[in-house]
Amino acid sequence: MDIADLAQRIVGGERRALARAITLIESTRPDHREQTRALLEALRGTGRQALRIGLSGTPGVGKSTFIESFGMMLTGQGLRVAVLAVDPSSARSGGSILGDKTRMERLSRERNAFIRPSPSQSALGGVARRTREAVALCEAADFDVVLIETVGVGQSETMVAEMADLFILLLAPAGGDELQGVKRGIMEMADIILVNKADGDLKPAAERTRAEYAGALRLLRRRPQDPKAFPKAMCVSALAEDGLQTAWEEMRILDAWRRENGHFDIRRAEQARFWFGEEVRRGLLARLDEDPQMRARMRALGEEVARGGMTVAVASQAMLAELGAGG
Amino acid sequence: MDIADLAQRIVGGERRALARAITLIESTRPDHREQTRALLEALRGTGRQALRIGLSGTPGVGKSTFIESFGMMLTGQGLRVAVLAVDPSSARSGGSILGDKTRMERLSRERNAFIRPSPSQSALGGVARRTREAVALCEAADFDVVLIETVGVGQSETMVAEMADLFILLLAPAGGDELQGVKRGIMEMADIILVNKADGDLKPAAERTRAEYAGALRLLRRRPQDPKAFPKAMCVSALAEDGLQTAWEEMRILDAWRRENGHFDIRRAEQARFWFGEEVRRGLLARLDEDPQMRARMRALGEEVARGGMTVAVASQAMLAELGAGG
Repeated sequence: MDIADLAQRIVGGERRALARAITLIESTRPDHREQTRALLEALRGTGRQALRIGLSGTPGVGKSTFIESFGMMLTGQGLRVAVLAVDPSSARSGGSILGDKTRMERLSRERNAFIRPSPSQSALGGVARRTREAVALCEAADFDVVLIETVGVGQSETMVAEMADLFILLLAPAGGDELQGVKRGIMEMADIILVNKADGDLKPAAERTRAEYAGALRLLRRRPQDPKAFPKAMCVSALAEDGLQTAWEEMRILDAWRRENGHFDIRRAEQARFWFGEEVRRGLLARLDEDPQMRARMRALGEEVARGGMTVAVASQAMLAELGAGG
Repeated sequence: MDIADLAQRIVGGERRALARAITLIESTRPDHREQTRALLEALRGTGRQALRIGLSGTPGVGKSTFIESFGMMLTGQGLRVAVLAVDPSSARSGGSILGDKTRMERLSRERNAFIRPSPSQSALGGVARRTREAVALCEAADFDVVLIETVGVGQSETMVAEMADLFILLLAPAGGDELQGVKRGIMEMADIILVNKADGDLKPAAERTRAEYAGALRLLRRRPQDPKAFPKAMCVSALAEDGLQTAWEEMRILDAWRRENGHFDIRRAEQARFWFGEEVRRGLLARLDEDPQMRARMRALGEEVARGGMTVAVASQAMLAELGAGG
């Protein structure tokens, strides 16, 4: 594969080149990993710094409808929009939250939109890593907005937040007066909470839910570098296409503020450090599984420990010595 | 320190020797780790296979009262009971769930009881590892029952389940008809669910809660090797010391069954393999933090990535090559 040519065609805006490059990224074959590294290096520094928006929401809050309506609104304003996903569950279910294109029928036909399902790998770390690299490709391909969605399985929100400039939490109107069991950690990551389905009969419930979350957000520690109004909770209706423009304006206000104040760059640098650390840790641990000799040794020592012939402490020290990693 | 002598005194039932050995285990000093390994090796195969009971319950369910009443009942029957804890939050709060001895006043004065608070380390992995080693010491010291409690922060239940023969989930009577937001994964680990506070006005609510959980447990996949009646949900009152004997008998029935059918040994062997893998992975990753040269190199490459001079993929490959771990 001619990597230089592929890079050039991605920068030139060829969607098929972008799709092919993401397929390369998702491969676990060592030669493909090598080509991926070369491609990412060739694309380093090209393109603009798109606005990366992380979007989390459990099934049923209308995430697909939101992405469709929100994406259509943005492309209607001449913006180029890429939609990626981090969904470790897609490997298990065989499908993907974005796999069903009929759920985003209009957006998937848009010339200025690019939709890519979550890579189907079992481990969250692997999925997140591939998606982060795909985000870099989308930036090189000159997209203005990269939406990264997640269903919020396990740590997936944290992973998405670590690759996004803004983190949006999408919720549905709640029935009672409870906070829908949203984990505090997720609340703390959110820059903007959008209560969807604020239309028809659900409008009053949506407004109540919004007010509750606005209250809860006030109790959380504010990010000192952000404008006072953030994080904030708003109502939208993806179905009625209501409130989306206002939500977009708020996102742009926060994004512009952070870029002006240098916090955008600081955050991106922190994220780069985070992913570097993640990759090194993942690579270290991978050796245990990938090197046949190490795997055999792990198995043998594990059996010795299991039958009580050796303590965990002694066996692990022996293994670490073989790995050249001390005790 | 004379490790052989210390080992002998632990086996001889000297509580002070046991306490001192656990302090040694909790130390992170390399020479102390070396002594710990020697001590654990010296004690390997001594003592009996105590019944290790994992006990999880969020604050407010009456965990301390339960341990006090349950422990007193067991010591009253001539059994020797050790109580350990896995509580990663104790490092942050400075205190420990078991630190306040007044909460288990009677049990802490019992000659046949040994209570040890959670080691105060910030990372769950470290806390769990030390506690697992302390469990081995308690077995060598010939305790009949080792209770390992956790408040259920993050993954701590999983860690406790990986060092216990039985896993007990303690709950309080619920107000409404909801399952108290107990995570499905925790439910699946439980061998017995105990609804505490089944006394006075709360008795009907406790019975309702028990029935709900009994129903929920029926929906979960049963462990095919266990008797049909398990997992089960029961009511107890730690305060009124009611139902504790019945609960204990159920624990013994399940334990006896598993020992007879070989599943006790199979599970212990699996757990040994698990902790061996954990120790090796932890040791591998620790090298990044502990080796000053590697730490400096990580920092330098991290900065290069942060300022955009290198991609994460290339920098992590370079680091892994230096660590001798391939790409």
